[in-house]
Amino acid sequence: MTSIAMIEAAAERLNGHACVTPLLSSPFLDEIAGRRLLVKAECLQHTGSFKFRGGWSAVSALSEEERKRGVIAYSSGNHAQGVAAAAKAHGTPAVIVMPADAPQPKIKNTRDLGAEVVLYDRTGGESREAVGAENAKVRGLTLIKPYDEPLVIAGQGTCGLEIAEQAAAEGITQADVLVNCGGGGLSSGIALALEARVPGLRVRPVEPEGFDDVTRSLAAGEVRQNTSLSGSICDAILTPQPGEITFPILSRLCGPGIVVTEEEAMRAMALAFLRLKIVLEPGGAASLAAALFHSSRIDGDAVIAVATGGNVDAALFREALSRYA
Amino acid sequence: MTSIAMIEAAAERLNGHACVTPLLSSPFLDEIAGRRLLVKAECLQHTGSFKFRGGWSAVSALSEEERKRGVIAYSSGNHAQGVAAAAKAHGTPAVIVMPADAPQPKIKNTRDLGAEVVLYDRTGGESREAVGAENAKVRGLTLIKPYDEPLVIAGQGTCGLEIAEQAAAEGITQADVLVNCGGGGLSSGIALALEARVPGLRVRPVEPEGFDDVTRSLAAGEVRQNTSLSGSICDAILTPQPGEITFPILSRLCGPGIVVTEEEAMRAMALAFLRLKIVLEPGGAASLAAALFHSSRIDGDAVIAVATGGNVDAALFREALSRYA
Repeated sequence: MTSIAMIEAAAERLNGHACVTPLLSSPFLDEIAGRRLLVKAECLQHTGSFKFRGGWSAVSALSEEERKRGVIAYSSGNHAQGVAAAAKAHGTPAVIVMPADAPQPKIKNTRDLGAEVVLYDRTGGESREAVGAENAKVRGLTLIKPYDEPLVIAGQGTCGLEIAEQAAAEGITQADVLVNCGGGGLSSGIALALEARVPGLRVRPVEPEGFDDVTRSLAAGEVRQNTSLSGSICDAILTPQPGEITFPILSRLCGPGIVVTEEEAMRAMALAFLRLKIVLEPGGAASLAAALFHSSRIDGDAVIAVATGGNVDAALFREALSRYA
Repeated sequence: MTSIAMIEAAAERLNGHACVTPLLSSPFLDEIAGRRLLVKAECLQHTGSFKFRGGWSAVSALSEEERKRGVIAYSSGNHAQGVAAAAKAHGTPAVIVMPADAPQPKIKNTRDLGAEVVLYDRTGGESREAVGAENAKVRGLTLIKPYDEPLVIAGQGTCGLEIAEQAAAEGITQADVLVNCGGGGLSSGIALALEARVPGLRVRPVEPEGFDDVTRSLAAGEVRQNTSLSGSICDAILTPQPGEITFPILSRLCGPGIVVTEEEAMRAMALAFLRLKIVLEPGGAASLAAALFHSSRIDGDAVIAVATGGNVDAALFREALSRYA
């Protein structure tokens, strides 16, 4: 179980290695949001998303023996790059299990970050869990799960410690904190950090339409699943259901979820380009979309949106600009 | 004459108002640059460029009486927005003199930042100086020049104080600091700050091909002019010649200038999108282009590039991505 002490310990291990990402703002966005809007630009984190925090937290906590044997992760996206970069910096071998049909640049990036990429055929009945488990067993690798892992949650929680400090510097102690939510690792980590430091800041998970398992689970008081697992441009935050470890934390600490459309996420990407000069992927812009376009569902004079990642294909980004910028 | 004490005083006035911009990095860019590359992301500053620092420094130093009467600036670009935003926050009227044929979004942005925009016809023989001087005289406005003004140089110098501190945290005390250079306000401000704090960090001005007045002036030891004043996508850093106040500072403190092509600036914009998740305008990306594509002209194991601004038209940005990302 992740505690504030674990988050503080993770922050010490990350100190000097992770980027302290800035809290950005623009009067133009304040006007659309109808209140003060602060954007935690986590897209500027190493590897382009907050996932570097969790990866570093997990790898840096391994024993020397475990570190020598190596780590393994399943991911075709941001978690893969976060773990690969953290492992490389620690001199730890990393195996990343990716679908053979993943976009070539993602496979290449992960390899360029020093990881061994093991491909599996997701259409041919192979499961990544089976491929991963076999590799882990034979080679003695430590599995780093993307969210249901206390050390990963602690790493993501370091983002919450920064928010607490930066919001205080802006005079904000009462606000909704909108967090893009897949399995809930970042949302629960930030929620735990804020509970300890600034209980007036409350996490609100944000999800894309059609993949609102966390929002429905929070409303029902028990775990609900998504019916589909693909088909959204917000691919970074699609998961089958809230995590076993994360859901009780979310349930205890978060306010109601907010659901945004793909179009709203694309509009938020264009506004982040125009007004904040940052690059967001659709799943990284959902929280900003919620702040801008669902303001009636938000409480208070100020709101904080965590812009979680910027690993977007150039073609999709150009599309967002050509439509909305 | 701007001194380190003036820069420190400006930093105190800016504290809590300007954004402390992060120093970003990527192993992918290090590889291209052939050394450690750190990017000071000044595009994330309020109004999308470092110009907010100089604007704030100048407005905040006015007497109460001067502040009540208001300020005036000539600019169709980043200086206009920096002065307008700083004036608005101080409750000071701002008049910005802009060409009537400036892009509509720039005029609208400047108005939306609370400034009164006075248009002049640059094709019809009106000079902005004449229009501005008349307004300044009749209304008792204080003129804020874009670079030949000690308070503005002091404001831009605060960026240098941050670089000194952030570079030290990265263990860097010896490196070239590449700065996009128009009139030389930012280059001279940073150079003065670094001279006082970390003399091993040396400013190298960067300019676009065909507009290399500072590079040629430094080489000649006396002021040289550009033959043309328009026709580059790096519009943010085009000036007729180095400033009267800035040139002696540049001459005393800077290493040789570096000249980049427009194509290199566009490639740097695409790489900043891919690897750093920041939005740069061509004139804001020239320094990064120098670090990436002119590494043989740079000394040492590390280099710092100041990415000075991100106010780029969406169409041009899309073009950079479609060609190079």
